[in-house]
Amino acid sequence: MANGWSTVSVVGVGLIGGSFALALRKAGFRGKIIGVSSAATIRVALERRVIDEALPLRDAAAQADIIYLAQPIQRILETIDQIDDCVRPGTLITDAGSTKAAIVGRARERIRRGRFVGGHPMAGKQSRGVAEADADLFYRRPYVLTSRDEELEEWVRRIGARVVILNAEEHDRLVALISHLPQLISTALGESIAQADGAAKVAGPAAIEMTRLAMSPYEIWRDIFSTNAGPIDDALEKFIEKLQELRERLRTDGMGEAFDCAAAGARALRGVELL
Amino acid sequence: MANGWSTVSVVGVGLIGGSFALALRKAGFRGKIIGVSSAATIRVALERRVIDEALPLRDAAAQADIIYLAQPIQRILETIDQIDDCVRPGTLITDAGSTKAAIVGRARERIRRGRFVGGHPMAGKQSRGVAEADADLFYRRPYVLTSRDEELEEWVRRIGARVVILNAEEHDRLVALISHLPQLISTALGESIAQADGAAKVAGPAAIEMTRLAMSPYEIWRDIFSTNAGPIDDALEKFIEKLQELRERLRTDGMGEAFDCAAAGARALRGVELL
Repeated sequence: MANGWSTVSVVGVGLIGGSFALALRKAGFRGKIIGVSSAATIRVALERRVIDEALPLRDAAAQADIIYLAQPIQRILETIDQIDDCVRPGTLITDAGSTKAAIVGRARERIRRGRFVGGHPMAGKQSRGVAEADADLFYRRPYVLTSRDEELEEWVRRIGARVVILNAEEHDRLVALISHLPQLISTALGESIAQADGAAKVAGPAAIEMTRLAMSPYEIWRDIFSTNAGPIDDALEKFIEKLQELRERLRTDGMGEAFDCAAAGARALRGVELL
Repeated sequence: MANGWSTVSVVGVGLIGGSFALALRKAGFRGKIIGVSSAATIRVALERRVIDEALPLRDAAAQADIIYLAQPIQRILETIDQIDDCVRPGTLITDAGSTKAAIVGRARERIRRGRFVGGHPMAGKQSRGVAEADADLFYRRPYVLTSRDEELEEWVRRIGARVVILNAEEHDRLVALISHLPQLISTALGESIAQADGAAKVAGPAAIEMTRLAMSPYEIWRDIFSTNAGPIDDALEKFIEKLQELRERLRTDGMGEAFDCAAAGARALRGVELL
């Protein structure tokens, strides 16, 4: 069962990979945690005792009972292309990528000896890197898995997250709305403000809050857009329709209803996710 | 000069009116502060020593050197309709309404004995009411005045705010972008989430943050929409164009440029407004 893992290999020891390692330890994992990452990251990860040792990918994969891929999406796809012939039969391989259809599709083609379960912890921080890794990062957050796996589900629960089972396509459609659309809205608002003379001088708290995401680094988002363009485009199209409705409501009745509905949506998010 | 005021009458002793009174005191105002508000509010305002005494509007207006209208917009318009024949000639009347063209236009028609300077402190809190009043609410925030007035500008600076002189139309165009558009974006996102099955179960920090404004009470916003529909409609139209551009960029190049521009806009807001 869950105690069956004796070696975990974390590939990409950044904020998410490092936090997963720390969270496993805090939850009572007593086996070995191997890290695969750049030399600079490995140095910090060893200093902070996030990992027990560092190895090249093939060696780390060969020893592991579970391989946790926490790289950027394109790197996860490349790792999936390389990893299967290194692993022992039955090794669990999971990932933490922000989109799932491309990754699960690739794993379905390439993973034969291992067994793959896609994952996406709905957690993050404004700052990145292993220096920011935090054993409590996943606490009370949704953690999506694209198929059931008793051992993995058990550990996800032990690190304090809430298991949500969704197939890859459903996941990608929901995160397009709940994560990728908010990013693009903030980006569009930041652009609108950048291009309006004098806007900054009347900056109030609403604009400050609604443009925080606009400062997100594009390097994270490039892969998300390239692997989830269809669902994001749909979400944007529907959101634009909503805004057109609000334009009509500006001069007619019905804006109060829109506010009621929106507040219910906002509260529903908070009901699940007691921030 | 600024020390010339001996009596200030605050009409509407809520979060903004109460904070203005507390801020004046903290900044060294030694005269009398009269409050005009509902009985329940007056009780709390007197208990918290936000005001020195309470009077009906006409009496408070007759005694004042400056009258500070901090009611909802429609109530400010009604007060402007009634107040001029009560005041001493030359009395300064200012307001804290969130839109300016309707209010300044009404004052131009109705205020003859007094002199009117429109105002809008770009400050607020999630909670309202005099119980939340705070002497530091305006600290480092922009405070728009629709015309120059040496005494008023001096007190705005003393309470720690940054004076920004804008005519009413320019103000309304800028706040449509910087305040009213962010509200409607958050409302539209909240509605989209309310109407999507299963969205709440993958709630992450981005959706939480971007829907906070969606829980704003409509009663504040009704008057803003009815007095600023034109500029808000323009801001929505341009924002929709931006989102359409981002849709096109999803599958082509140029998304990186949009992120760079948006980040510059977000930073410009923060450069002025070191939150």
